[in-house]
Amino acid sequence: TTQYRITLLPGDGIGPEIMLVAVDVLKVVGKQLDIRFEFQEALIGGAAIDATGEPLPPTTLEMCKDSDAVLLAAIGGYKWDNLPRHLRPETGLLGLRAGLGLFANLRPAKILPQLIDASSLKPEVVDGVDIMVVRELTGGVYFGQPKGIFTTETGEKRGVNTMAYTEAEIDRIGRVAFETAQKRQGKLCSVDKANVLEVSQLWRDRITQLATEYPDVELSHMYVDNAAMQLVRYPKQFDTIVTGNLFGDILSDAAAMLTGSIGMLPSASLGASGPGVFEPVHGSAPDIAGQDKANPLAQVLSAAMMLRYGLNQPIAADRIENAVLQVLDRGDRTGDIMSPGMNLLGCRAMGEALIEV
Amino acid sequence: TTQYRITLLPGDGIGPEIMLVAVDVLKVVGKQLDIRFEFQEALIGGAAIDATGEPLPPTTLEMCKDSDAVLLAAIGGYKWDNLPRHLRPETGLLGLRAGLGLFANLRPAKILPQLIDASSLKPEVVDGVDIMVVRELTGGVYFGQPKGIFTTETGEKRGVNTMAYTEAEIDRIGRVAFETAQKRQGKLCSVDKANVLEVSQLWRDRITQLATEYPDVELSHMYVDNAAMQLVRYPKQFDTIVTGNLFGDILSDAAAMLTGSIGMLPSASLGASGPGVFEPVHGSAPDIAGQDKANPLAQVLSAAMMLRYGLNQPIAADRIENAVLQVLDRGDRTGDIMSPGMNLLGCRAMGEALIEV
Ligand SMILES: CC(C)[C@H](C(=O)O)[C@@H](O)C(=O)O
Ligand SMILES: CC(C)[C@H](C(=O)O)[C@@H](O)C(=O)O
Repeated sequence: TTQYRITLLPGDGIGPEIMLVAVDVLKVVGKQLDIRFEFQEALIGGAAIDATGEPLPPTTLEMCKDSDAVLLAAIGGYKWDNLPRHLRPETGLLGLRAGLGLFANLRPAKILPQLIDASSLKPEVVDGVDIMVVRELTGGVYFGQPKGIFTTETGEKRGVNTMAYTEAEIDRIGRVAFETAQKRQGKLCSVDKANVLEVSQLWRDRITQLATEYPDVELSHMYVDNAAMQLVRYPKQFDTIVTGNLFGDILSDAAAMLTGSIGMLPSASLGASGPGVFEPVHGSAPDIAGQDKANPLAQVLSAAMMLRYGLNQPIAADRIENAVLQVLDRGDRTGDIMSPGMNLLGCRAMGEALIEV
Repeated sequence: TTQYRITLLPGDGIGPEIMLVAVDVLKVVGKQLDIRFEFQEALIGGAAIDATGEPLPPTTLEMCKDSDAVLLAAIGGYKWDNLPRHLRPETGLLGLRAGLGLFANLRPAKILPQLIDASSLKPEVVDGVDIMVVRELTGGVYFGQPKGIFTTETGEKRGVNTMAYTEAEIDRIGRVAFETAQKRQGKLCSVDKANVLEVSQLWRDRITQLATEYPDVELSHMYVDNAAMQLVRYPKQFDTIVTGNLFGDILSDAAAMLTGSIGMLPSASLGASGPGVFEPVHGSAPDIAGQDKANPLAQVLSAAMMLRYGLNQPIAADRIENAVLQVLDRGDRTGDIMSPGMNLLGCRAMGEALIEV
């Protein structure tokens, strides 16, 4: 029996209910494949603020470090939106990423044939879209110093953030991206704003340099404004995309929305060593929290990414992903992906369906 | 007779051929409405680099300052892509914006019913979309100091740009945006990343403050990642969008591509006083330059924006815009917007069609 210690961070809003489903699914797959999960739960985000006064209590970070992988649901909600920055749910998430050194964020945007009609794009435009965005996650303008709101000599306020990357930071995310592309269609598009930004110029130079070590990967470069256009115009041109923290935030969300069903999309955040964090792309959806309406499939697919990228258990990951496809094939849908003629299920019932198939 | 001095900056690629069409159209409308244009031409971008060694020769900036409005076509091309930054075409464009103090960039993205099929989105999603992006154009990470590629103590390179806004910079673009929204549907969405960036926090605070002066405008705020999603998901929710330089660059291009025909989209860049610059959203398309294949309509519509926003000649602007709609109605199309059953025209022939109708 292989045994893993998994830290669960249910967070806020629909987080706890979708987490329950993912845990149930993991238990069943674990039993089938002789994998034992030891789950430990910790607080993050608004739930942590309410209980402890801070969005990432030190014990939470310790528990995460002391585990094989972290499964996170979602954080945030109206209630905590107007707190000072250091007390906001998002700050807890950024602290977790920094604290675990999770510099590589993998965000797949893959169209499922069963859900192609959910897209706002024409079916022939999105049919077959399968994009992996590799986003740098612990650098760039999210973390650059100096930052803050300063008072100038004239007494006026000036808000400042610093968009910066070192060569080492670019290289390590670049390697993850090239290796990811190697396992996919072998095409990597690096997105930057090198025609305007010096930080992007360094980015482009380093990625170009790295490419010599990956002759089997076809590298291209694109400006971020054009990438935003091309994702809308002809998304099938992309295989793997690598970009910085802010551009990745924007483009991965745009790419996700091409599918029309962000309730289906997982993500993985990985460091050089130590546990990764696996979480859905969607938010905490406070307006439907506790109503058994949430779609748990992105959370379940995040558990599959955890098995694949965090625990190196591809067979277990395949099982879970297949179960998701099977429930979709037989017509089971939560409200967010519902369409005429399908079976409308709540969050719990969807979980049961996954275990049944 | 009203008389205006117009500086023409044809630039690179298809720039000169589409500029010719716009000038012809302006002449005809001028004759009809008793407006005289005195045109003067100057160099910018790659053409200026080739002739003078710099992308924005001082005489060009002087001529622009000494005119009532500037009509720009497009800059750039493969040929100049690998020059050092200070010698690149884009640097000339940024210098022009800074030199004329053009802090407000207006980018309409409006679906024309005649071209709705060109969109990659479903017709019911984009039908009626009419968005105006108000982008701050002389601040933010495009111009913030410090910037450059520096060597750290460990001998490693670090690329740095600074994303900064002062209260005054936010207020002046905010006012333009609120006033723009007043003339439209009265809805303004301010886009930032205030959950992560201090510069965005100041932005959101100031815009919120300004809103008290515009009680007739309904203000909302959205994070930039969500805005990128929502543009894809349900673009009709937007009327006027205001945002910083970088976010505006990305989102205005995404919004433009919703229409499926960026060969149709003009833009206006305005300062506090002095001449504005009016230019198409599309680039210089070097691959089709000189082949009489370019779509001149964005350039022509940029001339209409010049009349409306730069010279306060709304009747002349209406005439031009109506002419564009009429040629589309009768089925005239350039290659980029061609569809079965329409009449395929070259750039020059499209110009003649505009004058005919
Ligand atoms: C919540 C927020 C801080 C976060 C980010 O900007 O990284 C989110 O948008 C994401 O993409 O995971
Ligand atoms: C060419 C480039 C410098 C420019 C920008 O980034 O502003 C362009 O993309 C635009 O949007 O006008």
